Amino acid sequence: MALHIGVDVGGTKVLAAEVDADATVHRTARRTTPGRRVEVAVLEDALTEAVLEVADGRRIDGVGLAAAGFVDAAGERVMFAPHLPWRDDPVRGRLARRWDTTVVLDNDANCAARAEVEHGGAREFSDALVLTLGTGIGGAVVLGRRLVRGRNGMAGEFGHQQLVPDGLPCECGGSGCWEQYCSGNALVRHARARIGQEPTVLEQACGGDPDRLVGPMVTAAAETGDAVARGAFATVGDWLGVGVANLVAALDPEVVVVGGGVSAAGELLLEPARAALGRSLVGAGHRVVPPLVRARFGPEAGVIGAARLAAKATLRDRV
Amino acid sequence: MALHIGVDVGGTKVLAAEVDADATVHRTARRTTPGRRVEVAVLEDALTEAVLEVADGRRIDGVGLAAAGFVDAAGERVMFAPHLPWRDDPVRGRLARRWDTTVVLDNDANCAARAEVEHGGAREFSDALVLTLGTGIGGAVVLGRRLVRGRNGMAGEFGHQQLVPDGLPCECGGSGCWEQYCSGNALVRHARARIGQEPTVLEQACGGDPDRLVGPMVTAAAETGDAVARGAFATVGDWLGVGVANLVAALDPEVVVVGGGVSAAGELLLEPARAALGRSLVGAGHRVVPPLVRARFGPEAGVIGAARLAAKATLRDRV
Repeated sequence: MALHIGVDVGGTKVLAAEVDADATVHRTARRTTPGRRVEVAVLEDALTEAVLEVADGRRIDGVGLAAAGFVDAAGERVMFAPHLPWRDDPVRGRLARRWDTTVVLDNDANCAARAEVEHGGAREFSDALVLTLGTGIGGAVVLGRRLVRGRNGMAGEFGHQQLVPDGLPCECGGSGCWEQYCSGNALVRHARARIGQEPTVLEQACGGDPDRLVGPMVTAAAETGDAVARGAFATVGDWLGVGVANLVAALDPEVVVVGGGVSAAGELLLEPARAALGRSLVGAGHRVVPPLVRARFGPEAGVIGAARLAAKATLRDRV
Repeated sequence: MALHIGVDVGGTKVLAAEVDADATVHRTARRTTPGRRVEVAVLEDALTEAVLEVADGRRIDGVGLAAAGFVDAAGERVMFAPHLPWRDDPVRGRLARRWDTTVVLDNDANCAARAEVEHGGAREFSDALVLTLGTGIGGAVVLGRRLVRGRNGMAGEFGHQQLVPDGLPCECGGSGCWEQYCSGNALVRHARARIGQEPTVLEQACGGDPDRLVGPMVTAAAETGDAVARGAFATVGDWLGVGVANLVAALDPEVVVVGGGVSAAGELLLEPARAALGRSLVGAGHRVVPPLVRARFGPEAGVIGAARLAAKATLRDRV
């Protein structure tokens, strides 16, 4: 049986996984991302370790890399990645030589979108928007079942659309970016601001120190009915609907799929988002408003999409 | 020689024109749009008069209709048009029978975009955004030289993206829509607010009554160096760049083409827009920022695109 491995190179962790043709994940290996200030070789040693651990001595037919950063349109170089040491670097070719196998490279949000398009929430649709709500917003535009890459390979950077003039400052250098209001970071910020103001189980969850609050704590609290946590999801969900309405006005897709860590809260996030979408979308009474659905795949979407991309490339190499 | 006629059915006027294969406009005919409260037959009588005037007794090979409204994805029905009497109406088939020729139907902004893609500012590019700045913002997304129509045929409604939370109310029922800040209406509003506050030739141009101020007066004044008029273009141009940056973040196109009445001011509009685009676009230092260029065609873009669409459909009918 062919061995295709996906590797998700995120800002905080590396996940490598063997993925079969049905998008089922078998063996996995994890590493901590060494950070952006290390030598490139240190990061690539960590990736190599994870890949070899998954392979466990078997011949590797192909590796797909899902990188948290800008990848050029040819899929050869990581142009820029805020949390990784790669800078305008021909990563694909170097790792293909090092691992002596077919290697493909794409942006992590694109890989997650591929998983949803081929095996998940978007598989019955031709035109879709796929959003990944994690620390920030990853995104992908799918038209005619093909991913739109753009001139620079940078299509889908929805998170940095400015929705608030002179709004909150963003790591990208801009201000008022959508992801400052709608993301895991925004969720935590909204919840944190209420700790000490209102009774909430979050106070205990973070051990009395709001700085220790993280997204999964807010999700868990919201699921038990905590008002502060639910309020944070309602606010983030509302911003999700407003931003999705803008994208739907531009592209009029058949479906909008929302994945990433924040989407684990399911309807607590999606219900307020649908309300805001219906309220904000132009001509909502004269059109089919696209369903806003939760992604099928969770944190493994990136490795699944990357591994499937590698499987396709391997097939192409053989023809 | 084949006779293909484009008809632009706008909110205030109807323009019909004979257009040849080189996008050259020959005979034209104009009518005033009867308004949205009349019977559909009154509007269609006016269109028929204009078409027959252009034909001048010759056999018509095809007519392309560019309608200021939502057209369904099949190009059969006008779903909704704020300034016209058509409501979920199978306009194409009815007029094809009435005129006994091939009739095609599309949204006016899509038709203008087709003209730019095939003969104008976008013809050397595969992926483009085309904006028409008139009373509001018309838009079109071009990918792989094909127009993106969307699930409902409503793609390209950029003007109703919300860029200002709780911003200015919009005719669409929303608030803070981009076209409230970036359009002919916005240009006039910005200029009008300064009349009486600062010395400006606009005071004389509108005969002392700011309510009589219209866009072309602001363009003419800006071209003579009037500070108030130039300030209005600087403000609208800045908003143009901010909104274009959002679209470029999502789609990463090769070029952005700006047409419509407001674009007649050329660099007075585009220079501040480019500055705002460079300032607002995510990763501007790590990508090729798409050129922001003026459309080739002016008020005739719609009829040109519509007539060329009819020519293509005629060809298809014959095969």
